[in-house]
Amino acid sequence: MSLPRTARFTHLLRVYWEDTDAGGIVFYANYLKFFERARTEWLRHAGHGQQAMVDRTGTMFVVTDSRLRYLKPARLDDQLQVTVEPVEIGRARIRVKQQAWCGDSLLCEGEIAIACVDRGTFRPCRIPNDILESITE
Amino acid sequence: MSLPRTARFTHLLRVYWEDTDAGGIVFYANYLKFFERARTEWLRHAGHGQQAMVDRTGTMFVVTDSRLRYLKPARLDDQLQVTVEPVEIGRARIRVKQQAWCGDSLLCEGEIAIACVDRGTFRPCRIPNDILESITE
Amino acid sequence: MSLPRTARFTHLLRVYWEDTDAGGIVFYANYLKFFERARTEWLRHAGHGQQAMVDRTGTMFVVTDSRLRYLKPARLDDQLQVTVEPVEIGRARIRVKQQAWCGDSLLCEGEIAIACVDRGTFRPCRIPNDILESITE
Amino acid sequence: MSLPRTARFTHLLRVYWEDTDAGGIVFYANYLKFFERARTEWLRHAGHGQQAMVDRTGTMFVVTDSRLRYLKPARLDDQLQVTVEPVEIGRARIRVKQQAWCGDSLLCEGEIAIACVDRGTFRPCRIPNDILESITE
Repeated sequence: MSLPRTARFTHLLRVYWEDTDAGGIVFYANYLKFFERARTEWLRHAGHGQQAMVDRTGTMFVVTDSRLRYLKPARLDDQLQVTVEPVEIGRARIRVKQQAWCGDSLLCEGEIAIACVDRGTFRPCRIPNDILESITE
Repeated sequence: MSLPRTARFTHLLRVYWEDTDAGGIVFYANYLKFFERARTEWLRHAGHGQQAMVDRTGTMFVVTDSRLRYLKPARLDDQLQVTVEPVEIGRARIRVKQQAWCGDSLLCEGEIAIACVDRGTFRPCRIPNDILESITE
Repeated sequence: MSLPRTARFTHLLRVYWEDTDAGGIVFYANYLKFFERARTEWLRHAGHGQQAMVDRTGTMFVVTDSRLRYLKPARLDDQLQVTVEPVEIGRARIRVKQQAWCGDSLLCEGEIAIACVDRGTFRPCRIPNDILESITE
Repeated sequence: MSLPRTARFTHLLRVYWEDTDAGGIVFYANYLKFFERARTEWLRHAGHGQQAMVDRTGTMFVVTDSRLRYLKPARLDDQLQVTVEPVEIGRARIRVKQQAWCGDSLLCEGEIAIACVDRGTFRPCRIPNDILESITE
């Protein structure tokens, strides 16, 4: 297991109508989407698109565990900062801590575990070397 | 071009939190999902699952044109009747009229055009014979 | 704190195109939607619609914590059994265990914590008595 | 009826896992979301947030008609340019033409009609003057 890069990555996004529910706030399941977008941009920032990863290596990342705590609601038009902080990077699995902030209010936080799998069989496999190297030190 | 079966197919569904937006009503884009569910059940009623269609024939249906008019809002917990009425069934394309009702109120109606395509190239191709036969007379 | 009814509630649902992603399987965030639908039907089975709850009491349920483990993928056209098993029912909070099954394969399981809040202020409040009574013994 | 500003507004967005379906492409219903995001940013660019509009004036925009033609598929990681071009701006209704492009490929285009309604009764009402002025010349 390698040491993850320690810098915390931040992705900005806006809350649209599609993200809200009849409670007048962001539907809680959508934080999983927001966290996914941030992880995708974190990987892209490290040089890797996931469609290219599938096409080139036949592997893809899947989420195996998610834990989220919802602290405060977000509303239409809010601009959120969504962070990615890797806490464990293994040969075949990554665990990240993620948070969604609106200004200086923490709205939602959690941990997401991701595994690298074969796109056809969904069997666990090693994270491609170049991707692993670019997200560790 | 064959004559479509004239009977109108109806699919029942319930409005959940996920379907609503901060306006307190069903998010309009979700009627495309509701109409899709009804078409899927209409095909299943005719004997055909779409995953089986892809696996067996390498073809799938894609939507090429959608036109929807939104007349009245639906709310959380409403039970909707969603109809499918084929208006044109060609060798490679299907056009259906669809409506969403809550009780005797028409909420949304429209027309959807669907084409059969190769799953890899997305090129138009003929609708598999057995599927075509089971949705026409 | 009351003892929850021990019977496990099951809700059936079908996987549609809208639920899948480019990995060819159900997008993991959608299990939160499936679990929500099952909880909604569990409450309805106990005699309570949530829109009626908001209109009548000015309170609503919000999710405060979710933990999900994803074990096996579901695919288009799969029919899932989604269960609700209350593990703790307090004056203002409910904690339920939920599972999604396809046939005898367990696909996803987790725990969801729900709080009753004022619809305007989002401050925690007591679950309305009649609702509390109908979900406990 | 006023003349709309003629400049075409463009909003950039990225395709994420959440936007795709098991066909390996963007789920067609999601173009309504993409078009909505672009209209929201077009209004914001004109100085108006929609949550502020609801809070300040008690009115909101709802979609009354949508027509979309789907020409080419988009895939995971594609960056799309989504345009907004008003074709008719009335006292209570707006009609816009919208397109989604990936590079120089037109993927989807359509027309969306929007009405201003009272947030409580959903009855049509006049677009607030300052908003109307800032989107017309």
